[in-house]
Amino acid sequence: MNIQNISKEIKKYISDNQWLLFEEGYTGDENLELESKFCLASGLMSLRASHFEGTVRKTLPANYMHGVFDKDRAFQRELVNLPNWNILKIFYKTIPMGLEVAKEIENYTRILDMKKGMVYKSYIETSFDGRKTKIESIHFLSRELQDTGIFRVYVTPLNYSGQIEFENTIDASITNFIDFPRFRVKHYNVKNISMNEENILYVNSETKDFKLPITTASKIYIYTENGEEIEKIHQDKSYGEYGVDFFDLNIEEGKTYIIEKRTVIKNGLNIDNPEKEALEKIKKLESETFDELVDAHVEEYEKLWNRADIVIKGDEKVQKAIRFNIFHLMSTPNPKSNDTNIGAKLMHGEEYGGHAFWDTELFILPYFINVFPEVAKNLVEYRYKKIEGAYKNAMKFGYTGARYPWESADTGEEECPDWTIEPDGTCYKCTVAQEEIHVTADIVYGGYNYYKMTNDKDYFKKFLLILYETSRYWLSRLEYSKEKDIYELTGVTGPDEWHENVRNNFYTNYIVKWVLELANRIFTNQSNDDLVKEFILNKNVEDKMIRDFHEVSSKIKIKNTKGLIEQFEGYFDLIDYEIYEWDKNNMPILPKEIKGIKRDLTTINKQADVVMAHFIFFDKFDLETKQINYDYYEKRTLHRSSLSPSIFSLMGLKLGFTENAEDYFKRSLFVDFDNNQGNTREGIHAASCGGTWQALVYGFAGLEFKEGKLHFTPRLPKSWELLEFSLVFKNKLNKIKINNEKVDIYEEELC
Amino acid sequence: MNIQNISKEIKKYISDNQWLLFEEGYTGDENLELESKFCLASGLMSLRASHFEGTVRKTLPANYMHGVFDKDRAFQRELVNLPNWNILKIFYKTIPMGLEVAKEIENYTRILDMKKGMVYKSYIETSFDGRKTKIESIHFLSRELQDTGIFRVYVTPLNYSGQIEFENTIDASITNFIDFPRFRVKHYNVKNISMNEENILYVNSETKDFKLPITTASKIYIYTENGEEIEKIHQDKSYGEYGVDFFDLNIEEGKTYIIEKRTVIKNGLNIDNPEKEALEKIKKLESETFDELVDAHVEEYEKLWNRADIVIKGDEKVQKAIRFNIFHLMSTPNPKSNDTNIGAKLMHGEEYGGHAFWDTELFILPYFINVFPEVAKNLVEYRYKKIEGAYKNAMKFGYTGARYPWESADTGEEECPDWTIEPDGTCYKCTVAQEEIHVTADIVYGGYNYYKMTNDKDYFKKFLLILYETSRYWLSRLEYSKEKDIYELTGVTGPDEWHENVRNNFYTNYIVKWVLELANRIFTNQSNDDLVKEFILNKNVEDKMIRDFHEVSSKIKIKNTKGLIEQFEGYFDLIDYEIYEWDKNNMPILPKEIKGIKRDLTTINKQADVVMAHFIFFDKFDLETKQINYDYYEKRTLHRSSLSPSIFSLMGLKLGFTENAEDYFKRSLFVDFDNNQGNTREGIHAASCGGTWQALVYGFAGLEFKEGKLHFTPRLPKSWELLEFSLVFKNKLNKIKINNEKVDIYEEELC
Repeated sequence: MNIQNISKEIKKYISDNQWLLFEEGYTGDENLELESKFCLASGLMSLRASHFEGTVRKTLPANYMHGVFDKDRAFQRELVNLPNWNILKIFYKTIPMGLEVAKEIENYTRILDMKKGMVYKSYIETSFDGRKTKIESIHFLSRELQDTGIFRVYVTPLNYSGQIEFENTIDASITNFIDFPRFRVKHYNVKNISMNEENILYVNSETKDFKLPITTASKIYIYTENGEEIEKIHQDKSYGEYGVDFFDLNIEEGKTYIIEKRTVIKNGLNIDNPEKEALEKIKKLESETFDELVDAHVEEYEKLWNRADIVIKGDEKVQKAIRFNIFHLMSTPNPKSNDTNIGAKLMHGEEYGGHAFWDTELFILPYFINVFPEVAKNLVEYRYKKIEGAYKNAMKFGYTGARYPWESADTGEEECPDWTIEPDGTCYKCTVAQEEIHVTADIVYGGYNYYKMTNDKDYFKKFLLILYETSRYWLSRLEYSKEKDIYELTGVTGPDEWHENVRNNFYTNYIVKWVLELANRIFTNQSNDDLVKEFILNKNVEDKMIRDFHEVSSKIKIKNTKGLIEQFEGYFDLIDYEIYEWDKNNMPILPKEIKGIKRDLTTINKQADVVMAHFIFFDKFDLETKQINYDYYEKRTLHRSSLSPSIFSLMGLKLGFTENAEDYFKRSLFVDFDNNQGNTREGIHAASCGGTWQALVYGFAGLEFKEGKLHFTPRLPKSWELLEFSLVFKNKLNKIKINNEKVDIYEEELC
Repeated sequence: MNIQNISKEIKKYISDNQWLLFEEGYTGDENLELESKFCLASGLMSLRASHFEGTVRKTLPANYMHGVFDKDRAFQRELVNLPNWNILKIFYKTIPMGLEVAKEIENYTRILDMKKGMVYKSYIETSFDGRKTKIESIHFLSRELQDTGIFRVYVTPLNYSGQIEFENTIDASITNFIDFPRFRVKHYNVKNISMNEENILYVNSETKDFKLPITTASKIYIYTENGEEIEKIHQDKSYGEYGVDFFDLNIEEGKTYIIEKRTVIKNGLNIDNPEKEALEKIKKLESETFDELVDAHVEEYEKLWNRADIVIKGDEKVQKAIRFNIFHLMSTPNPKSNDTNIGAKLMHGEEYGGHAFWDTELFILPYFINVFPEVAKNLVEYRYKKIEGAYKNAMKFGYTGARYPWESADTGEEECPDWTIEPDGTCYKCTVAQEEIHVTADIVYGGYNYYKMTNDKDYFKKFLLILYETSRYWLSRLEYSKEKDIYELTGVTGPDEWHENVRNNFYTNYIVKWVLELANRIFTNQSNDDLVKEFILNKNVEDKMIRDFHEVSSKIKIKNTKGLIEQFEGYFDLIDYEIYEWDKNNMPILPKEIKGIKRDLTTINKQADVVMAHFIFFDKFDLETKQINYDYYEKRTLHRSSLSPSIFSLMGLKLGFTENAEDYFKRSLFVDFDNNQGNTREGIHAASCGGTWQALVYGFAGLEFKEGKLHFTPRLPKSWELLEFSLVFKNKLNKIKINNEKVDIYEEELC
């Protein structure tokens, strides 16, 4: 993997190799996967790395924007695939140029530069009529501007001169699931397409359901290799749903021509006139050169990496992969708004519609709390802002208080459908939204974690409402057994989705019990806290209710908290299997004997609820109990959720089962880096990114918070010579260096 | 070239090899050319042979309908490329199938069956995941129904079973010049896209300028290889400007599945509710099986070939090529309407926008007069129906009477623009419409020819108006020189477009003189003809006007009619060059010395006006004069018009210059068969088809009409053992057989 064939004009931007991901040689086979892996995100919008030239092999060109959701005939509100601006068509005498229309492609290299959040591409195409053209590009979504995407195309005719023609295109025919005919749906109407007198091409569209206006505006600038601007006549050749700015260029053999496309996208979520603002912004940016825009963008990424970078010496692949996970995770959430959250696949693909799951609170949030607490604040406040949806959701099921949805988009109502369609068109009833109620407790757990770490009083006021209303929900949801004088939860599904509709799932019961206890504790201690006092007064919270929180919590059925713990009532009565085969990555293989037996009749798990509970309530269980359960459930867990291996890695490290910890870690680390679950094309596994970080920091570095201080118990893999990372703690940036001999902590001011 | 790899289900339809054109092995390189060559036409509409699977290599999918023109931002009204119904997308687990998305394509064969007006295709695609699928198809536009296109796709999974998905698509995003970004223009708006409860998918659109409504309606039928219908759920997955009917199919290894798509297109030219009629027609057709529809279609083609077929024994290529010319020519014009004419590229491509030129009257009409006089009637009556446009055109230039446009579409007004744009974007002033006025006389010549051959009194009434009004135009257009007492035509261009804006072009002056003489003769003989009498009465035609026709005609400047004739005033003063090099096809090469000299300063011609005049007024010139001029102009004519070689072939044969006659003939015959002008992608050269037929019948067979009888003076090339063809003459079908020994004529009843 080298960059020697890339022109110097592009080479000058490229970071050191350790920051780069390569695609070498174009086959088209991995388009979808690479579109996710090389996807860019600005904190406001994202751009999958489809090819601007257009391809006929499978592709899913997509660009999304935080908060722009729509349902129409889909079965849920999902992030809208907005008009595709990542297109510049090039023709020589009407013959299209590009990757899949050429006779031969040589020296193809595409690079994701994680340090700078940029993508470079370079290749030489030989056309069927023998012309050789070097085509190169640079893409970035400005981290400084957030709503602006810029790409440059460098065209160098190697053995001919002549006129080439361009179509700067905004394709407003694009749909969601463009590569998946059965699910394809168009989430916006095109209102009008135009090019103004300043040659700004723009498409006004609006979402189908809420009629949210969106403007996608682009302008082209052309330069010689010396940076001199070339003025050309631009013609509005838009037709139907395609915005097209047509122009031509006479090119000379051996010279390089630079086409720069700047695109601004504005939507009506927070502004009145997206069209006006988009056009004005493009104009305003004219005073800034490409390099100035790059510099401002890179400066923002430098700030991010100053906090976020993790250095691992001794294993180059692990080093690159950890940066890969961090790059995508940190680039995605909106640092400036608490209106939106993080989708389970980030904004990097269409799976799960950009919805927030419990993944946010349990897998992703710890990362942001400890590295970007200002982003964590937005994530936890998002739940507060969506509490109206949670009220509706509780009512829908006949309960009081706030019941958070399993899948959350812009309205905060449940997006997880009751019926869903398989890729082959068969329908099945999906009970997840109804049964996987632990999410409502997970949200309290996550919010409380944030508050504990930050002591953010502003958020605490909001947290009180979440805690109170979700506790009220649990009071109405818990089922009282007069006979046994206990509270139960039946008809639930725990994190292990292979066992649905169970009774008294340990994870769920335990966390609900904890929530109610927390509510009791916080609201009882009102006299000590003005915020609580004020809340109780405003809400007219009755003492009885506060006592009920404790009363009910104490009676929630927990069979045992010591020794082997049953995942749910009746789990131990299932047909018991243990895993006895592992694949080449040391990941478990489903016992052959199970074939033909319904999975939920066996003890084999997708992920282990009891281990998860032990992880998040680590101090509440004795070591032996945790070890017994880890050992038992490890033998029965297939890790078919990308959330599972990271937990087994770090719990293994903490409990002394270190043998598999590195394999589990790599399983999580490489989920998308190596596409080891085979579905990276659908987006980047956000929870896995967060879980990987937790395994690294809590597991290998052994971070604990003891007596208000950072404390480390390193357990680095042998091959690692050094581990460096940073944590924000008590408003300082703590730079941690761990090697086999010692742990160094340097405190810096936070900027 | 064989058909052995094609499945028996398709093989059964295929005619004998001598009727077939083959494409073997898919490269994509020749897509555009083959789309023209394999284009189908029903007499009402046409379908270029683009691939239903979709391709990324250059392609110009198009379907046109007689009379559906639009201008919008094009520079002329042109045939509208209607929503593309020739699409059926096939997916296996969302992976597209087809020619350019496969890893490998084997046994690719595509066949144009000229006998039946059908196109077959067969190949095996190997996907990147190793699946092998045989994909085959049959296309035809029903000659019986005219407004109905049908294609079947045969899918056979060779090494797998599973579910495949289909998108029956009507692509209403298609534009004209879809392959030519600079000229691309969309000529219709999409009104609505829908699928009704009977699973008929339809798109309602309307042309941009005249708001002519058009409905494109399609329905899918699925069959097993045994012909049993498979009922499937169809889902309307339309989005934006794409009508999409989505369905899936579980297929088993080794079995063949047949997807049949029937499409009906209706426009508002002659009906009130195209949507209603299209939907009803599709429903009505349900009572007919595919084979019944094929049979009815083939029966119509049998009737056509019964009159049209030409048999040449001794040269297989010539045999096939002559059928190729005839096939496209006879398939195109509308036998049921005189509202439309024949475009210079038939309806097989976008060049010249489907406009009628003088090509119709001088090159194409003789064919139809002698083979399909009922079609010839429509062609000549078209000019009558468009006379309002000719009035306007005369007025526009400040003249009286009727001045026909150089390019004629639906309004009959001039479509040839004053300014036109080169492929590289440069503009140039185009004076053809202004100067090439001979077309107005050519139309009279053609119409009179038709009348003479058919004695069609119904048409004669209409002809009188054309004759009268165009003669009035000439009276106002001709320039009187008091000094010399002659009438002149300056600022004209003859058929030889390499010499524009000339004085007293021989061809033009001669034919105008003839028209006025004819007008004088016909209107003077009023007493003998009630139709003329009635016309004169109704029109108030003054005697003076009739006398003027003669008076002016007699004074039109014709320098000489014997000996060497000057193409136009001053032609003999130009720098004189003679051709001295010929290419491998024995076609002349531009003398090297001319390089750098403006072509119009030399005597080198694109085509020879004097020879053309001698051809159409053969009996008016003595043999020696014709020989002298043929000899002189042959040495100076480059035949850069596809109209030229056929004239040189047949005139050579008639004048005894037989040496090059066969080469000229083949040049004309193979224009599109071999793409020997390199522009077959733009459509089929209609005039060349007609000229080829004239060279064959007037030249090689030596047809003359003498004393009311057919008379032949055969001059067959040595390699031809037999020439057979048919002529309609005096309401009988005359079957002519010519071999070296004799000419046989069999008279049959016309059916």
